[in-house]
Amino acid sequence: MRRPVITLTTDFGLSDHFVGTMKGVILGICPEAQIVDISHEIGPFGIHEGAYLVAQAYPYFPRGTVHVVVVDPGVGTSRRPILAEAAGQRFVAPDNGVLSFIYAREKHKVRWIKAERFFLKNVSRTFHGRDVFSPAGAHLARGVAPAKFGKPIIDYMRLHIEKPVRTARRGWTGAILKIDHFGNLITNFPADGFPDLDTRPFELSVGLQTVERLARNYAECGPSELFVIAGSSGYLEISASQASAAKILGCGVGAPVELRLL
Amino acid sequence: MRRPVITLTTDFGLSDHFVGTMKGVILGICPEAQIVDISHEIGPFGIHEGAYLVAQAYPYFPRGTVHVVVVDPGVGTSRRPILAEAAGQRFVAPDNGVLSFIYAREKHKVRWIKAERFFLKNVSRTFHGRDVFSPAGAHLARGVAPAKFGKPIIDYMRLHIEKPVRTARRGWTGAILKIDHFGNLITNFPADGFPDLDTRPFELSVGLQTVERLARNYAECGPSELFVIAGSSGYLEISASQASAAKILGCGVGAPVELRLL
Amino acid sequence: MRRPVITLTTDFGLSDHFVGTMKGVILGICPEAQIVDISHEIGPFGIHEGAYLVAQAYPYFPRGTVHVVVVDPGVGTSRRPILAEAAGQRFVAPDNGVLSFIYAREKHKVRWIKAERFFLKNVSRTFHGRDVFSPAGAHLARGVAPAKFGKPIIDYMRLHIEKPVRTARRGWTGAILKIDHFGNLITNFPADGFPDLDTRPFELSVGLQTVERLARNYAECGPSELFVIAGSSGYLEISASQASAAKILGCGVGAPVELRLL
Repeated sequence: MRRPVITLTTDFGLSDHFVGTMKGVILGICPEAQIVDISHEIGPFGIHEGAYLVAQAYPYFPRGTVHVVVVDPGVGTSRRPILAEAAGQRFVAPDNGVLSFIYAREKHKVRWIKAERFFLKNVSRTFHGRDVFSPAGAHLARGVAPAKFGKPIIDYMRLHIEKPVRTARRGWTGAILKIDHFGNLITNFPADGFPDLDTRPFELSVGLQTVERLARNYAECGPSELFVIAGSSGYLEISASQASAAKILGCGVGAPVELRLL
Repeated sequence: MRRPVITLTTDFGLSDHFVGTMKGVILGICPEAQIVDISHEIGPFGIHEGAYLVAQAYPYFPRGTVHVVVVDPGVGTSRRPILAEAAGQRFVAPDNGVLSFIYAREKHKVRWIKAERFFLKNVSRTFHGRDVFSPAGAHLARGVAPAKFGKPIIDYMRLHIEKPVRTARRGWTGAILKIDHFGNLITNFPADGFPDLDTRPFELSVGLQTVERLARNYAECGPSELFVIAGSSGYLEISASQASAAKILGCGVGAPVELRLL
Repeated sequence: MRRPVITLTTDFGLSDHFVGTMKGVILGICPEAQIVDISHEIGPFGIHEGAYLVAQAYPYFPRGTVHVVVVDPGVGTSRRPILAEAAGQRFVAPDNGVLSFIYAREKHKVRWIKAERFFLKNVSRTFHGRDVFSPAGAHLARGVAPAKFGKPIIDYMRLHIEKPVRTARRGWTGAILKIDHFGNLITNFPADGFPDLDTRPFELSVGLQTVERLARNYAECGPSELFVIAGSSGYLEISASQASAAKILGCGVGAPVELRLL
C-alpha cells in the first residue's frame, strides 16, 4: 500500500516548535504518513502568497495527497475550517481564500469541517494548525471519507486573483504575483497566452524600466541584464542574469506591469 | 509495526550540512525511522530556548518517540550525554539542563550514556550531534533498552525555570520566556493559574506599557493594539493584532512582566 | 526491504515551493523514498559551497543513497545532467563541478543522463530540479540501473579545489573553504596532515591576526578568544569561544591562511 502523503504550507517559520508539533499530531493519528513541507516562510498573514505557493506545488503531487494549508489570521474567530476536493487531491485550510487558485483552475467540491471528533480534544484559540487542521488532515490521509467531515458549502471565500487586463489592441496591464528566492519577479501573464513574444518585438515595463528581451535561460544574457523568460511557474517572469531582478527594479508584489506588442 | 519517530532540536541552523548529516547517521542505523525536525533555529547556545521548544512539542508526539536535543556549548568537554525517560517518551541530550521543563513536569529517570558502542567509531571533538547523540537516539529507536546505555544518575543538571513570584496580595512579577516568529511574547504566567482575567479588570505591565485587555483571538482587536491572550503554549502571551508585539514593546527574553488584579 | 534514501542539496531556499515540489515529483515516482534535506540555503549559484556540503554529508549516508544536487546557474543551457557512482552511492547533478570533492576522493564513474524518459514530460527552461534531476533521482532510487540513464563520459567538469601550498620548509599557504552557521572558519588544511600542532608551537595567520593556540573543544578558551581546532569537517578550523570567529576576523570564503611551524 502506498504511504499517504501530507503536505504542510504555513506562515509559522521554522524558529518555533509549531511545525514540528503539527507533525507530531499527524504521526500520532496517521503513523504511516509521509509529510512534506511546501513552505513555512510565507509572510505573516500572506494569504495571497500561500495561495500561489500551494497552486504551484499541488500539480506535482500524487493522487490522494492531502495538503494542509495554515495561513490563518482569523484563527479563533468564526471563520470556517474547510476541506476541498480537487484534481484527485484534498486540501484542508481555513476558509479565507487561500485555495482560490485551485478553485479557479479545477473542478472542486468544498465542505465545512464541522465534525469536531477529528480535532484534538482541547482546541486552543490560537493554534488551529495543531489542534484542527493537522488532525483533520491526518484522519483524511488515514482514509476517513470527506463526507464524514461535514456538508458541502457553496459560499466559501474566493480571493480576486488579478489577471492581465487588455488596455489597447496590443497592450495589457498586469501585476507582479510573487518574488522568488532568486529575486525573479513572477508576473500574472500566463506564458502560453503570449506565445508571440518569441518571434516579435515587445516592450514590458515595470517600475522605471522597460525590458525588450526574451531569454531561453538564465545564462544567455550579460551580467545583471534584465530579461523576460517563460518561467517554470507557467507565467512570464522578469529575471536578471546572476542577479536579483527585484533589487534592480525596486519592485514588490502587486507592482503594475505593462506589456506592449510592437 | 509502527515506524519509530525521532525528533531533532538543535542550534545548527539549516545552512550547513549538519542536520542532514545527522539524518544520514540515523537512517544508517534505523532505516525505518520517521525523522521530524522541531527546530534548528535555536540561537547559538540557547539552552533555555531549546528547553522551552522541546517542552512545547513533546506532549503532541506518540508514545515511544525519541527526541534528540543538541544545544551543546560544552561539546567535547566532560559534560555527560544523557538519556531521559519521561511521559512514555525518550530524550537524548547533553547534560546541560536542556531537559529541565520535562524534569519539572513529568516523572522521569535519567541515565548517563556511557556505552560507546552506540556512538560512531570516530567521535570528533566538536560534532557530537553526528557522532554521539544521533547514533544513540537511532539505536534507542531501533529497540535497544535504555538500561543498555548506562546507569541511572541523580545529579543531572537542572536549569532554574523562572516562575512568577507573588509580590502583593493581587500582584505577581514574572518574565518573558520566549518571543515567537510572529513577535508574540510568551510570559511564564501559566494561563490556567490566572482564570480570573476573563472576568475582572487587570493591568499587565511590560516594558513601558500596560496592557488591560484580554482577547480570545488575534482578530478581535484593532490594528497594532496590544492584548493578553491565553496562548497555545499554555502561558499568557502578549500579542498585537496583525503586528509584532515584541517590536512595539521593544522587549526581549527575560524582560520582567508585572500583573496586578484590580 | 530498506527504503531508498534520497538527499536534496540546492540553492533554492525554503521560502518558495521549489523544494516541496521536487519532493512531490519524487514521491510520485518512488513513493517509498525517504527524502532528506542536506541544505537549501546554499548561496545563489554557490557551486563550491554546494560541493563542500555534499562532500561533508555523503560519507554518513547508507549505501545506495541517491544524492540530488541542484546548484545550477547554467539551467536551460547545454550543460549536461550527470549521474556519478562513487563510494557505493549515486549522485545526480548538473555537470558544473559540484561533485568535484567526490571525484577527488573516491573511485567514480560519471554518466551523461540522456534518457529523457526519466524526466518529466514537459521540461521547463528554468527548473530542472523539478523536471530533470528529481525524476531521474527517483527512478534511480526505485532501482533503474545507472547504465539505462546514459553512457559513461570522461570529460566532466572538475573544479580546482585549492589545497595548501608549501611555501617554506615549515610554512604553508591555504585558504578559507567555508564559514559555518556558528562563524567557524573552515580552512583547507586537512587536520590529519598536520598532527604536529598538538605538540609544537605554531602560528596560523588569517586576516590581520595570528592564532597560536590549538584547543580540544569550544569551552576550553576564554570568551571570544581565537583558537585552531581539528573540526568535525576533517579540516583545521578557526573558532572563537561562544563567538563568531568570522565576525572577529572579518574574513570570508577564499581568504588566505598562512601556517608556520616554529
